Amino acid sequence: MPVISNRGTQMPASPIRRLVPYAEEAKKNGVKVYHLNIGQPDIQTPEVAFEAMHHLDMKVVEYSHSAGNESYRNKLAVYYREMGVDINPNQLMITTGGSEAISLSFLSCLDIDDEVIVPEPFYANYYGFASSTSINVVPLTSDIDSSFALPSFSEIEKLITPRTKAIFICNPNNPTGYLYSREELEKLKEIVLKYDLYLICDEVYREFCYDGARHTSIMELEGLEDHAIMIDSVSKRYSECGLRIGMLVSRNPNIIATALKFAQARLSPPSLGQIAAEASLETPLDYFKAVNVEYNKRRNFLVDELNRIPGVFTPMPKGAFYTVAKLPVDDADKFCQWVLSDFRYENQTVMMAPASGFYITPGKGKNEVRLAYVLNVKDLTKALVVLRKALEVYPGRMTI
Amino acid sequence: MPVISNRGTQMPASPIRRLVPYAEEAKKNGVKVYHLNIGQPDIQTPEVAFEAMHHLDMKVVEYSHSAGNESYRNKLAVYYREMGVDINPNQLMITTGGSEAISLSFLSCLDIDDEVIVPEPFYANYYGFASSTSINVVPLTSDIDSSFALPSFSEIEKLITPRTKAIFICNPNNPTGYLYSREELEKLKEIVLKYDLYLICDEVYREFCYDGARHTSIMELEGLEDHAIMIDSVSKRYSECGLRIGMLVSRNPNIIATALKFAQARLSPPSLGQIAAEASLETPLDYFKAVNVEYNKRRNFLVDELNRIPGVFTPMPKGAFYTVAKLPVDDADKFCQWVLSDFRYENQTVMMAPASGFYITPGKGKNEVRLAYVLNVKDLTKALVVLRKALEVYPGRMTI
Repeated sequence: MPVISNRGTQMPASPIRRLVPYAEEAKKNGVKVYHLNIGQPDIQTPEVAFEAMHHLDMKVVEYSHSAGNESYRNKLAVYYREMGVDINPNQLMITTGGSEAISLSFLSCLDIDDEVIVPEPFYANYYGFASSTSINVVPLTSDIDSSFALPSFSEIEKLITPRTKAIFICNPNNPTGYLYSREELEKLKEIVLKYDLYLICDEVYREFCYDGARHTSIMELEGLEDHAIMIDSVSKRYSECGLRIGMLVSRNPNIIATALKFAQARLSPPSLGQIAAEASLETPLDYFKAVNVEYNKRRNFLVDELNRIPGVFTPMPKGAFYTVAKLPVDDADKFCQWVLSDFRYENQTVMMAPASGFYITPGKGKNEVRLAYVLNVKDLTKALVVLRKALEVYPGRMTI
Repeated sequence: MPVISNRGTQMPASPIRRLVPYAEEAKKNGVKVYHLNIGQPDIQTPEVAFEAMHHLDMKVVEYSHSAGNESYRNKLAVYYREMGVDINPNQLMITTGGSEAISLSFLSCLDIDDEVIVPEPFYANYYGFASSTSINVVPLTSDIDSSFALPSFSEIEKLITPRTKAIFICNPNNPTGYLYSREELEKLKEIVLKYDLYLICDEVYREFCYDGARHTSIMELEGLEDHAIMIDSVSKRYSECGLRIGMLVSRNPNIIATALKFAQARLSPPSLGQIAAEASLETPLDYFKAVNVEYNKRRNFLVDELNRIPGVFTPMPKGAFYTVAKLPVDDADKFCQWVLSDFRYENQTVMMAPASGFYITPGKGKNEVRLAYVLNVKDLTKALVVLRKALEVYPGRMTI
């Protein structure tokens, strides 16, 4: 039998996927599993997206332009201008989800074995895109006790080597919910300019900011025009994860031209998704207000209740729809599996994402989990009762 | 300004894209341009695909399983069984177009700087996928004078090095239209087994075979179970290029498991496309018959007419909807550009793909072009008159 590539063999399976069979087994046995592990919102997709499909009027589903439909790109430029980012349609390209925009930015900015600095904990799939494009992720460890704020200038500077080509952040952050302030972004700008790096920012949770906090896009930072690459997507904004429509935005014309060369090989982003996403630009403002109110309610409830459980701590996230919590357990991987396989409370259990999957520094996040507040408050209430009861009897409980 | 990656800088822009501005300029000046250059069929997408969108009934466009929707995979397994390939739903995964299936197979089978042998001329985007995954394409040159048949066993063997991990073919072939015979595939099987390689076959033109020729899938070859990887797509079969739905099929469980690890990072293939593609499995058989009759008519017309033009030769392709023709010109790149920029016949001109873009051996295909018969016979007639007239007056014409 021919061998699998080394990179394929070494590619880690996500730790959360290891838990899936336990959740499936529980469900098979009639147990109700509350999913606090996932990033798939339960919020409805705007009706305008479905209407565009219901009224689809074409004879052939053709390839689009490799950079996406011109009509959509024109409207997106207007959308960005309205949020304070003045760009033209040639400074953005439509990609197959934010995922592809990340891969294209890695391919365009970094060569094999080059390094990208990413604050950890970070969204585990970044590691997958780095593996696929043969680059190295250098973690910049942030700490739950300082709410996962950006470490100091000197801490970041320590990580820079001749192979460092980019700093990559997610703002608001998945998995921490942390919202980087303008000051933190200015600090990154200073480093990026000093070392002539790219600053790549995944801003797909932009619309999810709470307590009146204002999101700052890296595209708003003056003097960063040649350095800034924004990753965007409709997945979270309109609850359209399945469309697989994202964007790569940069004022550096070489980045767009290079990403486009790679993108031309795959011909075009999905045509139907583009049509639905373009229609979604007409989503009434009320939709976002209602979504924001709902998430804010869930967040407040989840964070308050978590911090009421003895030994549990989570900072108050300012954005996205996740929080990372520290639990009084020996090992969150073991705990998450045990809850699914061994623990039932009134025939219910709960699935969480062990935070170890969001760190690459060994041992980090060992007693942390990521919780997504994509359930309504009624279900969140039940899920938190299960979690509290589970922590009371878990054999690996640690005294604080 | 930070530098672009070397791989980005070195990634070639397709030679056909170089011609696009000339075609656009001609159109702007009111000239009718016949497109013989493209692989976008003018055949209508089956109505069942649009009906699935018109009746779309969901609340949230969610991610699908990373390997694609189970219902679709189940039906695809039946589809493959009916064509003589007995596989189960776990031996296939849905990808974002055949494009992604190719990238995933490269990532799973080959490491950086490993080699894949590909008969040339080959579809130019294969080179793009090889660049993105940092592997090397080793060309196995086939010749227009032997209709682009597979070279001998010893010719292929000569190319094998310790870094060779796979042989990759496209059957029926883009750009040549060549249909590999069962005997040729058996020859490849022998080599693949002798050197313990993978055999990857792009079979997206399977439904387009003429003169009663039967397509043999590499999945039908006995003893190749661990070695064979089939690339498939709905793009050509149902004229659904824009859906971006493809398949990776293999009986080697390690290949599917490894490809899935890479695919999990990008979450899922497009959800709407999957729904439309699943519905397309209900396309009435009449659709394919009508398409086949139409393409057969176009092919016969195009090949006959081309061979009537003094100094032109093209073999009779048995599949796909392309043919490569040898022209009496000094340089097909120059000729294709000159036709677009300088030549008009009754205010018409023609766009062709210079074959140099399908070879990587320097100098090969210099007097060849690829012609797609995706125009109806009426337009083909006009296009061929333009081509004949252009060849009569082209300053770089060669005497044969």
